[in-house]
Amino acid sequence: MEMTAPCIILDQPQLAENIGAAARVMANFGLYDLRLVRPRDGWPQPRAWASASGADWPLDEAKLFNSVDEAIADLNLVYAVTARTRETQLPVLTPRESATSLHAALGDGLKAGLLFGAERAGLETRDIALTHAMVTLPVDPRFRSLNLAQAVAVNCYEWGLLAQAPKPASFREGPPPAEQSAMLGLYEHLETELETNGFFHPPEKKPAMLRVLRVALGRARLSDQEVRTFRGVITALVKGRGRTLHRLAARKSRALTEPPESQEP
Amino acid sequence: MEMTAPCIILDQPQLAENIGAAARVMANFGLYDLRLVRPRDGWPQPRAWASASGADWPLDEAKLFNSVDEAIADLNLVYAVTARTRETQLPVLTPRESATSLHAALGDGLKAGLLFGAERAGLETRDIALTHAMVTLPVDPRFRSLNLAQAVAVNCYEWGLLAQAPKPASFREGPPPAEQSAMLGLYEHLETELETNGFFHPPEKKPAMLRVLRVALGRARLSDQEVRTFRGVITALVKGRGRTLHRLAARKSRALTEPPESQEP
Repeated sequence: MEMTAPCIILDQPQLAENIGAAARVMANFGLYDLRLVRPRDGWPQPRAWASASGADWPLDEAKLFNSVDEAIADLNLVYAVTARTRETQLPVLTPRESATSLHAALGDGLKAGLLFGAERAGLETRDIALTHAMVTLPVDPRFRSLNLAQAVAVNCYEWGLLAQAPKPASFREGPPPAEQSAMLGLYEHLETELETNGFFHPPEKKPAMLRVLRVALGRARLSDQEVRTFRGVITALVKGRGRTLHRLAARKSRALTEPPESQEP
Repeated sequence: MEMTAPCIILDQPQLAENIGAAARVMANFGLYDLRLVRPRDGWPQPRAWASASGADWPLDEAKLFNSVDEAIADLNLVYAVTARTRETQLPVLTPRESATSLHAALGDGLKAGLLFGAERAGLETRDIALTHAMVTLPVDPRFRSLNLAQAVAVNCYEWGLLAQAPKPASFREGPPPAEQSAMLGLYEHLETELETNGFFHPPEKKPAMLRVLRVALGRARLSDQEVRTFRGVITALVKGRGRTLHRLAARKSRALTEPPESQEP
């Protein structure tokens, strides 16, 4: 009977949409045990399933209770998600601290849950006092009114981060940056074409201009394939000119030496 | 005109309730600049205000746009909140990494935003390719379908955590990234020249090729000066072609009227 995620306890939730939204975001982050204490409009409510968008299992398995006491009876550790209140001398945790603590508790085989109050009324002090800590979201003091499902979301997200022990975030997906030799080939290709075209003017500015181009392109950390693409871009941009220069050169060489017919391979 | 929080851009949101819920959670965590790209049911929609529960100011001040391009035109830094896609070679950030980066960027006086796709369709690859990174929530692979307002909530929460913290280290050395409108100008300039030169072959590959170029250049986070430099590069590369074509045209016109000997310079 080991829990693999904390349960979510909603005390007297008013809106079926919020219950469904809570179930959905629980499923997003690997939670599944939903407990409802006296939902205002009874239970089950089809609108909850509609707003869960397919996250049916927390709703299908939701347990119904008549009081917070009963809903948390089997748990070793319960935190109340609530605005900070001075009426109880409980530790105040951030969602992140809460998740860390819950993660450790479940790892030790304890059963744990997060208790949320009703949309407007919040939790009664009496029920907060049954818990082991308050979890308070860092809301802007100018607008504290947090949607119930959003409060569930933030806590489930923090849980999910720890529970999935995600692989270290890599700087980027996909192929690695090209070797510097490939980048140098690209730089030289570009610079040769620009030189041919009189881009580096006045000449004394050329070193600085080269540096600007190399730094900007280097920052992109191009892959090998992208280096090839950019070399293709340069070739395409100069192609028309190259083609006509080639024709001009051939024409000129023919004119200077032999009858044109004999020169063609 | 300094931004004190990133803007939230919703691309083609379908449900007014989600727009309102996004505004509410923005207000919870100190964000205020809401931008809407072609909301499905038009704008304004009273149901958005109803579901914002008093967080009216992001809705009252919401800006309406016809395209993602326009909505992000004045921003230096844009992250796309999206499931990971293999189609773009962009960095993949967690919401926490994203918030850290945005916090540093705003601390440096840059303008930044988070781009969210429509409820079902998500973001188009074309629009992701306009951004600087993907922000991917660590959802359970067994149930990835995240509510739009919940995705906004998690990102706003991570922002709020940092916004209450002391000012971070500098986002980057040197000049800030150009506004997106300048990048779009560069892309269009390059693409027009490549199109002229038959680079996009076969034609059905053009969208993917455009994406590759935009993503690679976008990753470089070019400054305004660098954008101007690269536009100069493009012009220089095609200039010679123009010149030789012009010479050829002149020569051809002479050839039609004069003896061939007179053609060689």
